[in-house]
Amino acid sequence: MNKFMEPEWDGFKAGKWNEEIDVRDFIQKNYTEYTGTNEFLSGPTENTKALWSQVLELFKQEREKGGVLDCETKIPSTLTAYGAAYIDKDKETIVGLQTDKPLKRAFMPFGGIRTAVQAAKSYGYEVDPEVIDIFNKYRKTHNQAVFDVYTPEMKAARHNHIITGLPDAYGRGRIIGDYRRVALYGIDNLIIDKKAQLSTAFIRMTSENIRLREELADQIKALGNLKKMAESYGYDISKPAKDVKEAIQWVYFGYLGAVKDQNGAAMSLGRTSTFLDIYAERDLKEGRYTEEQIQEFIDHFIMKLRMVRFARIPEYNALFAGDPTWVTESLGGIGVDGRSMVTKMSFRYLNTLDNLGTSPEPNMTILWSTRLPINWKKYCAEMSIKSSSIQYENDDMMRVTHGDDYAIACCVSSMRVGKEMQFFGARANLAKCLLYAINGGVDEKTFEQVGPKYRPVTSEYLDFDEVMEKYDDMMDWLAHLYVDTLNVIHYCHDKYCYETLQMALHDRNVKRWFATGIAGLSVVADSLSAIKYAKVKAIRNEDGIVVDYEVEGDFPKYGNNDDRVDELAVDIVKRFMNKVKKHHTYRHSIPTTSILTITSNVSYGKNTGSTPDGRKAGVPLAPGANPMHGRDSHGALASLSSVAKLPFKEAQDGISNTFTILPNALGKDATFIENIDLDIKLTPEQIAEIEGTEE
Amino acid sequence: MNKFMEPEWDGFKAGKWNEEIDVRDFIQKNYTEYTGTNEFLSGPTENTKALWSQVLELFKQEREKGGVLDCETKIPSTLTAYGAAYIDKDKETIVGLQTDKPLKRAFMPFGGIRTAVQAAKSYGYEVDPEVIDIFNKYRKTHNQAVFDVYTPEMKAARHNHIITGLPDAYGRGRIIGDYRRVALYGIDNLIIDKKAQLSTAFIRMTSENIRLREELADQIKALGNLKKMAESYGYDISKPAKDVKEAIQWVYFGYLGAVKDQNGAAMSLGRTSTFLDIYAERDLKEGRYTEEQIQEFIDHFIMKLRMVRFARIPEYNALFAGDPTWVTESLGGIGVDGRSMVTKMSFRYLNTLDNLGTSPEPNMTILWSTRLPINWKKYCAEMSIKSSSIQYENDDMMRVTHGDDYAIACCVSSMRVGKEMQFFGARANLAKCLLYAINGGVDEKTFEQVGPKYRPVTSEYLDFDEVMEKYDDMMDWLAHLYVDTLNVIHYCHDKYCYETLQMALHDRNVKRWFATGIAGLSVVADSLSAIKYAKVKAIRNEDGIVVDYEVEGDFPKYGNNDDRVDELAVDIVKRFMNKVKKHHTYRHSIPTTSILTITSNVSYGKNTGSTPDGRKAGVPLAPGANPMHGRDSHGALASLSSVAKLPFKEAQDGISNTFTILPNALGKDATFIENIDLDIKLTPEQIAEIEGTEE
Repeated sequence: MNKFMEPEWDGFKAGKWNEEIDVRDFIQKNYTEYTGTNEFLSGPTENTKALWSQVLELFKQEREKGGVLDCETKIPSTLTAYGAAYIDKDKETIVGLQTDKPLKRAFMPFGGIRTAVQAAKSYGYEVDPEVIDIFNKYRKTHNQAVFDVYTPEMKAARHNHIITGLPDAYGRGRIIGDYRRVALYGIDNLIIDKKAQLSTAFIRMTSENIRLREELADQIKALGNLKKMAESYGYDISKPAKDVKEAIQWVYFGYLGAVKDQNGAAMSLGRTSTFLDIYAERDLKEGRYTEEQIQEFIDHFIMKLRMVRFARIPEYNALFAGDPTWVTESLGGIGVDGRSMVTKMSFRYLNTLDNLGTSPEPNMTILWSTRLPINWKKYCAEMSIKSSSIQYENDDMMRVTHGDDYAIACCVSSMRVGKEMQFFGARANLAKCLLYAINGGVDEKTFEQVGPKYRPVTSEYLDFDEVMEKYDDMMDWLAHLYVDTLNVIHYCHDKYCYETLQMALHDRNVKRWFATGIAGLSVVADSLSAIKYAKVKAIRNEDGIVVDYEVEGDFPKYGNNDDRVDELAVDIVKRFMNKVKKHHTYRHSIPTTSILTITSNVSYGKNTGSTPDGRKAGVPLAPGANPMHGRDSHGALASLSSVAKLPFKEAQDGISNTFTILPNALGKDATFIENIDLDIKLTPEQIAEIEGTEE
Repeated sequence: MNKFMEPEWDGFKAGKWNEEIDVRDFIQKNYTEYTGTNEFLSGPTENTKALWSQVLELFKQEREKGGVLDCETKIPSTLTAYGAAYIDKDKETIVGLQTDKPLKRAFMPFGGIRTAVQAAKSYGYEVDPEVIDIFNKYRKTHNQAVFDVYTPEMKAARHNHIITGLPDAYGRGRIIGDYRRVALYGIDNLIIDKKAQLSTAFIRMTSENIRLREELADQIKALGNLKKMAESYGYDISKPAKDVKEAIQWVYFGYLGAVKDQNGAAMSLGRTSTFLDIYAERDLKEGRYTEEQIQEFIDHFIMKLRMVRFARIPEYNALFAGDPTWVTESLGGIGVDGRSMVTKMSFRYLNTLDNLGTSPEPNMTILWSTRLPINWKKYCAEMSIKSSSIQYENDDMMRVTHGDDYAIACCVSSMRVGKEMQFFGARANLAKCLLYAINGGVDEKTFEQVGPKYRPVTSEYLDFDEVMEKYDDMMDWLAHLYVDTLNVIHYCHDKYCYETLQMALHDRNVKRWFATGIAGLSVVADSLSAIKYAKVKAIRNEDGIVVDYEVEGDFPKYGNNDDRVDELAVDIVKRFMNKVKKHHTYRHSIPTTSILTITSNVSYGKNTGSTPDGRKAGVPLAPGANPMHGRDSHGALASLSSVAKLPFKEAQDGISNTFTILPNALGKDATFIENIDLDIKLTPEQIAEIEGTEE
């Protein structure tokens, strides 16, 4: 007996997906692997060109106005707050905008009324005082709740940047709704399913279960509102999508609902191309649409994704070097049955970089495997060279943990779509932590007592064993404070800014990742190496606080495949992660960490004093897991090998390595792929690290 | 070193209350017991008479308008929403109104936007749609959250009245802020204290601790707002009150803040008279105020308490037979050191019944002890006879558990002021539960399957052992469902309608009582007795559901001091309470129960089918722990003795017995008090039960 049976599914192979919500099963039963070349692809239609030129004109106006074209200042964004809006109704095949005008930024106060007002202000807009009043008097927001709860210690750690970039003044993001469910099942089936979850016989009414039940009830309401939102565009999404155009439109409505509901740090799309290809294949076979039409739908869909905008505060933009939306789409990869999951649709997504020109968003991410079809690899390489807009990640490594229906949220955070989510946690600055260990918890820049008043190092020359012991203690303190701070943030986020619609597109019982992050790893490794293998003299100010260091002699540096120092880096990652794991994490979430600061390393470095490796105060930390700039003197392979030693198991949320190669070094066309496979002979782990990507 | 030292305290004896917030210690160190007569009392001043006649005129207008004089329809009530308002500014010595006009009812949507709108509507007022919009779109309320979380089973149990009167559509009330703290310490000291609580070194950030920290932060804000509210009347309550007039005013501001913040089922005042007397004694001694002036302040204070109003829905008023506010003030009692706590101020409070005439509010409650001063007893008796407005409760019994600084919330719920609070829980209808046991969970009125599908009784005549076994199982189900339902309610109340100001006037770590309640006890006892000692024939409808009973022969009836049936009543109370205690209760609250339905017994009876004791469908249940009307045929003492057997330990939230005595039976003056002491010779427990009072 199939629970779900719909006429829109004619021609699809049935399976477990008819018994329960299971998009992966639908994909696996129905997708058609494509191993051919890109020759089948269509260029942009005249319609697409005309529409896109209007968007380009809007982008131009936006730039001319200093980056923000318009800003809502009165109506808080909800799924149905702004009604239907268009770029050019006659030309758009896929419709839906965030607000009542293209590129106009929504007013999203639930994450923080203060920050929403401040964001608008920074663009020269004043929010309606009556609306501010509502949120100050009747509706607390995430940001305010967090600061109500923070301890003075947490505020000090935040203010002194030892814990930094926390999602307490912006939405945590990093949650991917399974937007495909909207297209495959239609909203009514999803509501039936959620109602079944809610009515499950009998639940012991602990606070935890009460919260879950309330969330489920809110999810059901969100699905109802999504239906209303689609209705305002003349679409009835209560039923499953009946062809590829509707499937794209339904998926986009799901995503659009999410970006109307949440201003998250990363609002990623998921893994939609192979799913949509199933509809395209059926339509091509049945002659419903031509290749040209299907490409037009995708072009228009991608156009919309390029137009996603949020109003953010200047501090946010400074931290992230712009205001990325991280509309990450994960393409390709290999199924657990060994078939590649590359389809024609995967090609069509990349083809938008030709049809519409290059763009950082949506963040096209290739799930890379040595076993991908060679024609796909070549096309990826070609498009990478052309567009510099493609991100690569190691599917062979992630598939082990996540199977074949995960996607990347933000830049590297992998999660099973609709089954896992992440509590995003920004970073602990381990370089600064080392300085606190030396200075007994006193900040080297503000001279505030931030950490515990442990005994500082008092000797002129640093002793490795003494520093390590003190560092271990200080990391203990930092890990506890960090975890507790994140517990506060995610409790308050759930309470005041819960991702209702995105979670409506998840299973009831989701696995939650508790994502921590490490900044300054290579500085720490080099500093410890300098203390151990060279002589490091502490320079103190009149109050006895160490404010600088002099290194006498040479020492092994991280990034040269030298185990003496690389093992220090590995040890620190393991050690810190073990300390993190000791503590209670909110909502049974599972601690992970990442080493992936790319843009924020500059600001972290600015706030970190001189370090024992000879790095001067204010100099940027190395990005992610990179060696410090210029210290990897033994060539690219040695540098990569150092990074590759870091244990992925302890840093499953991702390790990034920024690695620049002059195109000529690899050849002028896509043959470099074969070069890597045949000549460089890296281990899969090393390949993985090469493909580590930007934050 | 005293933490708290203020010039306003000159002349007061210092103590622990200077080290920490401890009003009881201040009282015990400073109060002057009064054993004299009422001869010192003053009548109403001309000013009081003039002011009171204006209030009486307003009361008259209110009655003429059908019970509601005016209704706010736009601005949600907060501490500072409506600004200062007066009856007659020049005449009032104690100021402060709930809204911008006397007797105008505030708009209080946090407990439930739907019910707040409905309440206004039932009086002919339309709430501003924009405000409704705010609460529907941006701010969930208690009522909606509860219904989001309820299971279908909970809704069915509620709809079928087996669990009934739940505070899910109205505020739970039954929380007494320690309003005396405002007068004694002033707001600034209270804020200092709360900030110290919040900043306490380090707290592990579990959800529970995060909630506590957020609540403390909100409490601090509420104290700040209370200060602002008082400022709007021209008073600076940041400092302690410096004389009795200010002390009364400060206490009233504290209470006024509470009734602006919460529309609770019972908004009781606490135990303020002995506290205020300390200020009066000092002022009398120092010649600051005369007795007449002090009585005037109290008269004006009580006047304000008589004017407390809430907008409530017709269903609420039906359940509670009017819309009582339960401004309960607990008077007298004996201290744990053996001194009576009766002061001149206790007399002055009762004297308002002469000066202003009789009134059910504030609910003057005498904490009765055989050891109270005889002049006080006489005065109480005299005022009781005159006003029929005084409630009596057994201090000798409650003092054992609660010490000497507890007060009564609502009608009988005792709690230490500022140290304990109650999660109010309405009632489980045990009479209906017995019918469910017989009918296998099918409701005898709606024929819905509400309880579990246990095997029903199928025999024509009921067998005691079979019924008891089935009843025990059904009580198991009911107790679990009941506790879980209350868990939902109190979780949601804390989340959406937290009593910020009232809890700001509590210690950080409060003891929480989880109050359950029993309805229909005597019907159950008699029914079981009938089944056991007579023959009870079940009359079934065509579907086999028992809809009536025929009793053949006589049986012992509860209320005649007959252990055969009284022990059944005791057994049911103990049994049900043990079942309640088996379950997880929200926030580590301690389960108690009460047997105290007075007005609601009528509506419960209406919803309960015929019972095996011969009571017909729809006939009211007996109130509280009363025997069924007319069945106590062995005289008053036997009736009281039956009630007195019920174990107070298992029903600490209170046992009520409605007991009417013709005044002539006791004599025409207060000498009956001595009669009771000397002649009737009840045990203290029996006295306690006599003094059980109305809900």
